[in-house]
Amino acid sequence: MTYETGFEVPPERQEVIITRLFAASPERVFAAHVDATLVPLWWGPRYLTTSVERLEARPGGQWRYIQRAADGAVHAFHGVFHLVEASRRLVTTFEYEGTPGQVLLNDLHLEAVAEGTRLIQKSVYLSVGDRDAMVQAGMRSGLVTSMERLDELFAAS
Amino acid sequence: MTYETGFEVPPERQEVIITRLFAASPERVFAAHVDATLVPLWWGPRYLTTSVERLEARPGGQWRYIQRAADGAVHAFHGVFHLVEASRRLVTTFEYEGTPGQVLLNDLHLEAVAEGTRLIQKSVYLSVGDRDAMVQAGMRSGLVTSMERLDELFAAS
Repeated sequence: MTYETGFEVPPERQEVIITRLFAASPERVFAAHVDATLVPLWWGPRYLTTSVERLEARPGGQWRYIQRAADGAVHAFHGVFHLVEASRRLVTTFEYEGTPGQVLLNDLHLEAVAEGTRLIQKSVYLSVGDRDAMVQAGMRSGLVTSMERLDELFAAS
Repeated sequence: MTYETGFEVPPERQEVIITRLFAASPERVFAAHVDATLVPLWWGPRYLTTSVERLEARPGGQWRYIQRAADGAVHAFHGVFHLVEASRRLVTTFEYEGTPGQVLLNDLHLEAVAEGTRLIQKSVYLSVGDRDAMVQAGMRSGLVTSMERLDELFAAS
C-alpha cells in the first residue's frame, strides 16, 4: 500500500510541511527513525548507500549519517535530538555538512489513524531563501522516494 | 553610549529580528557571547544570577546557562553551536528547560560599522504560536535589559 506524500511550501514562510499516511503502526514508523539498523534501509535516494555513524535518540543526543555514491562521492549530515517522545514526536536539527550553518529544525509528529499512521513533519529553515534553495535542489523527489522506501520496509517485515 | 534595540515581530512569520548598535568592536561583542567569564555579566535580567555550566563555541559544541533568583528559583537553558565564525556569525539552538522541545534557532550576525558594531539576531521558532508565546512572556524587555548590560560591560572595561 502506498499513499501520496503531501508537500506544502507556504509562500513567504520559512517552512516545508510534509504529510504522509503509512500502513504501519506509529511504533514501527518511530522505530524506523531511531533504530540505526533500520535508517539505512530507507533514508535517502536509492542510488546512494546510507550508513549511520551515530544515532543517539535522547534529548541532547547526536546523529550523523553518511551517504556514499557508486563513484565514491560522500555526503554527510548531522544534527541533535531535542525532544524524543516514543512513537509520537521527534524534534531534531538537521545540517548538511556541505553547507555548514544552514541548519534547520525538524518537528516530526506521528498519529495513530485508521490506515495506520499519519506522519506530519515540519521543517523550519533560517530564512525563506534557505527553504526555497532546498526545494529547488529537489527536496520533494528525495522525500517522496524515502517515503516509498519506508512503505517497502514495512511491507517486507 | 546606549542605542535603541530594534525588535521586529513580522506578522504570520515564525521569527523575531533584533537589531542593535554597540560602541565596541565586533571582536568584543563576539567575545561577550563566547567567553564563559563574560556571559554572566550581561545575560538575562539584573535580578537573576547567571552561571555558565558549559560553553563550547565550536560546531557541535554545547552550552548550558543557569539562572538563580534570590528566592532560590532556578531556570536553565541550553543548546548547541552549529556555526562559529569569529567576530562575524554564530548559529545556535536555544531551549528553555521548562518547555522541552520548544527549541529555536538563533542566527547572530555582527558587522563592523562607524559606531562600532551592528548586531542582527534572527530567532526562528517552530511555529508562529511558539514565537508569539515568547513575545507575550516579555521577551522584548528581557532582551533590552541584556543589550543595556552589554553596553555597561563594554564601558567598564
